[in-house]
Amino acid sequence: MNVLVVGANGQIGKMVVEKLQEGKQHNVRAMVRKEEQVADFKSKGIEARLADLEGSVDAIQATMKDIDAVVFSAGSGGSTGYDKTILIDLDGAAKTIEAAEKAGVKRFIMVSSIASNHREKWSEDMKPYMAAKFYADQMLEKSGLDYLIFRPGMLENKPGTGNVKIGTETAIRAIPREDVASTIVSALDYPTISRQAVDLISGDTSIEEALKKLWLN
Amino acid sequence: MNVLVVGANGQIGKMVVEKLQEGKQHNVRAMVRKEEQVADFKSKGIEARLADLEGSVDAIQATMKDIDAVVFSAGSGGSTGYDKTILIDLDGAAKTIEAAEKAGVKRFIMVSSIASNHREKWSEDMKPYMAAKFYADQMLEKSGLDYLIFRPGMLENKPGTGNVKIGTETAIRAIPREDVASTIVSALDYPTISRQAVDLISGDTSIEEALKKLWLN
Repeated sequence: MNVLVVGANGQIGKMVVEKLQEGKQHNVRAMVRKEEQVADFKSKGIEARLADLEGSVDAIQATMKDIDAVVFSAGSGGSTGYDKTILIDLDGAAKTIEAAEKAGVKRFIMVSSIASNHREKWSEDMKPYMAAKFYADQMLEKSGLDYLIFRPGMLENKPGTGNVKIGTETAIRAIPREDVASTIVSALDYPTISRQAVDLISGDTSIEEALKKLWLN
Repeated sequence: MNVLVVGANGQIGKMVVEKLQEGKQHNVRAMVRKEEQVADFKSKGIEARLADLEGSVDAIQATMKDIDAVVFSAGSGGSTGYDKTILIDLDGAAKTIEAAEKAGVKRFIMVSSIASNHREKWSEDMKPYMAAKFYADQMLEKSGLDYLIFRPGMLENKPGTGNVKIGTETAIRAIPREDVASTIVSALDYPTISRQAVDLISGDTSIEEALKKLWLN
């Protein structure tokens, strides 16, 4: 499969790109916003495509030629204002979803956030971000795409353990970014896990086993 | 019909409430956020119900007992931050839509904004607001409600003329708030104008004629 990673320069995005590149099972394409990021990826032998999530749906769609699956791990980050929360985390995601539908992309894997689907659990300072993620996920669920939404717990920079818990109503726990990236990469090999939205936290089941259980659900 | 006006203390909301109260054809209920606003409306003989759009869907739903139609004209206004744009203009609207569905409300009239359905027309400073309105409208269109979305042009405080233009791709022009309020009130009498989203600007057709044309569409 040709896989486009949107937000390839982000922390999880970078790991997904690297793991796909190492795995050699799929062809990875990195979608990034800046020319210098394109050069960065190219120097590592990775094809990068340029588009801005604040740009048009058409411009985003142009990066999806020959793409079979999109991984969306972009985000405005914690240092920008709430205007960017709306324009990147929500509108940017929704435009990517629209572009994927127009481009005939089969699969869409979304990196969401744990508890974004439960308003009563949104902490005061995270509310705008959670709402943006919630509505982006809603747009994906209401699209015609073959989607898979992962709602990871609190993201940590510890090395991955390879063990996770996947479920629809898990506790709110942490997970290393590396395990999120590994789960996304493995999930590409389970095309029958379709139109599902699940929590993803650290656990005691291997990623492969957890995905198999989800597939048998 | 029993009509609940959400955002009854806003500029358009107040006019809708007054016109409904004067018209006597429907029973108006004002949804407001503050106790003193409840008292204000009560002193004018208008039943007011207390709920905060930043509160729970259940709390909003509690204001919808015996309600046949909801008019949503609430907004965070220009003096608050973009966090409130997400939490009121989008999430508050979406919660009201969910509450209306749960409460079995038949009709939902939304006050949106002209060009909110065309990203390429969003001006730089209005982008977050436009996006919030766009996704709120999307949630309504994807709901099971019998909805009518008005996208008024630039709102003016001039007295209404009683003449408007209603269409799906009008020019971006102004309209007095009073004409928006009058159109909403009149639209309640056209229950067959259902599941439509239209622009609303000043024009040369009477409100009644414009609504009749829309009904015959």
